[in-house]
Amino acid sequence: MSAPPAFEDIAEAAQRIAGEAIRTPVVESAILNDRVGARVLVKAETLQRTGSFKFRGAYNAISRLAAHEWPGGVVTCSSGNHAQGAAEAARLCGLKAAIVMPADAPALKIERTRRSGAEIVLYDRLREDRDAIARALCAERRAAFIPPFDHPHVIAGQGTAGLELAEQARAAGVEALEAVLVPASGGGLTAGVALALRRHFQLCAVYVVEPEGFDDYARSLASGAREKNAQAAGSICDALLIGQPGELTFAVNRTLLAGGLAVSDEEAMAAMAFAFHELKLVAEPGGAVALAALLAGRYRPRGGAVGVILSGGNVDPALFARAIGAGGPLS
Amino acid sequence: MSAPPAFEDIAEAAQRIAGEAIRTPVVESAILNDRVGARVLVKAETLQRTGSFKFRGAYNAISRLAAHEWPGGVVTCSSGNHAQGAAEAARLCGLKAAIVMPADAPALKIERTRRSGAEIVLYDRLREDRDAIARALCAERRAAFIPPFDHPHVIAGQGTAGLELAEQARAAGVEALEAVLVPASGGGLTAGVALALRRHFQLCAVYVVEPEGFDDYARSLASGAREKNAQAAGSICDALLIGQPGELTFAVNRTLLAGGLAVSDEEAMAAMAFAFHELKLVAEPGGAVALAALLAGRYRPRGGAVGVILSGGNVDPALFARAIGAGGPLS
Repeated sequence: MSAPPAFEDIAEAAQRIAGEAIRTPVVESAILNDRVGARVLVKAETLQRTGSFKFRGAYNAISRLAAHEWPGGVVTCSSGNHAQGAAEAARLCGLKAAIVMPADAPALKIERTRRSGAEIVLYDRLREDRDAIARALCAERRAAFIPPFDHPHVIAGQGTAGLELAEQARAAGVEALEAVLVPASGGGLTAGVALALRRHFQLCAVYVVEPEGFDDYARSLASGAREKNAQAAGSICDALLIGQPGELTFAVNRTLLAGGLAVSDEEAMAAMAFAFHELKLVAEPGGAVALAALLAGRYRPRGGAVGVILSGGNVDPALFARAIGAGGPLS
Repeated sequence: MSAPPAFEDIAEAAQRIAGEAIRTPVVESAILNDRVGARVLVKAETLQRTGSFKFRGAYNAISRLAAHEWPGGVVTCSSGNHAQGAAEAARLCGLKAAIVMPADAPALKIERTRRSGAEIVLYDRLREDRDAIARALCAERRAAFIPPFDHPHVIAGQGTAGLELAEQARAAGVEALEAVLVPASGGGLTAGVALALRRHFQLCAVYVVEPEGFDDYARSLASGAREKNAQAAGSICDALLIGQPGELTFAVNRTLLAGGLAVSDEEAMAAMAFAFHELKLVAEPGGAVALAALLAGRYRPRGGAVGVILSGGNVDPALFARAIGAGGPLS
């Protein structure tokens, strides 16, 4: 296992990604503040390049590779958002990319990954081991493996979202950021955000938010060991179905996090509808779980401001229409 | 007719609204830039309080009223966005509000106006005169009339969006802002934006963008006189159906604008779909027409950066679902 990143790695990542990544806005809504009884800062990573925070970590890792050393470019595995981030980062860096994606990933995510020029290798999420497929491709092609979360450069890159949130909270006059809620699967975003916030808001409680039934991180934080999910399918939050916390992310998160929260699919859909009506932002189910936790009262503000990461917006139109109450049954 | 506002009135309005209005972000997208071959700065007024730029002008006008002088509060007429902006501004200022709205306004806009505590007075857009109804209410109740666009404080308030856009363009390293495209109906936003930009980017060409068949502003700019639309219904751009340019707004716009562009309903819907997929922003049809003009090639960039105002996002879910290709027929 590599060493976990430190705060300085996040500050360095921020400089590295500055020309290519978006400094996403923090959105505040009077309606949301009234609804939960606190100032809520929504970090809109939906507006990040490729539609999710994943571009940050992917670019921070991939832009360090010398093209002549990696004739096969990069290989990674992803349910869709890291796929898009890595494919776009590779394109910008002049590297080939092959992405191992589950055959049941949303069509939209597969198509958007392909348009960055990446080769897509589909696998069966319930029967095949994506890491094994990816590592075999790397060996065959002399390609670099870019893990979706368990890598110091990836974690540091995702942490830049937390660094920006801290700076934006200060600029918005926030003195006490009491909690930040972060959608989590492998835990890379949460680890990076927690590292960044510890520097700026020492007392801030950082929570992972997961779909019900996929709360491996919450259970791992409670037990102190990396627990697994019992199931591998069965939530609309396609971005959040990783079966177990990362080794490296868990090493960071177990010492820095306040705990884990879980929301139902219905609560995630209701948060998507809230984001549509009140924030005018497009969120995907997995991207909306932190907002959902706040709206559903899973976290109750205690007087300070609360940060929420809206982590991704890559959602098929049919599912989005259903979430806002205007769709037919899903095909 | 009052005197048109000057640049200083916009700067003053910016200070007045600062505590209550949102400084909305400018969103930039690599996909959009590639698509049109220029840097495009999208000013996301969809993220403004009440979901459109209208809160700016309404608050700038209404916050100057002393409650004891206006026991009946404020009265205005609006197809929906000014209604919400004025109702919310009145609520914040402790004033009553009565809003004269067309009976065929989107249900969502009527409901959102009502929740700010305003009284809604519905009228028949094809047979009744909304101004007459509003003025009768004002006389009856000792209420102040807050016009939706033809008022110096309203124009100056809307101009703060242009002031922010200019500052944000500078901060983003834009040296030449060659054009800004603005959705227009009465022309208040355009007039304010043109006044603000003239100070910061003297060579910037400002265009009004209207729905086809409702291009009274474009024809007025061409003829030099305030022309009328032949029709009063028949576009999905419900926010942009005013029949004639305002007197005051036209006095400003005729000297400052480069011209007018028009887009079809289909182009507006395609721009809504683009905003959903690529920008992850929710736009209503009328709010998307400036983006539509750019995407449809009605304006072709000549090497500099282009600003686009995404002016509102208050759209019924069924229409939104249809725009993104996931809805059934509209009821």
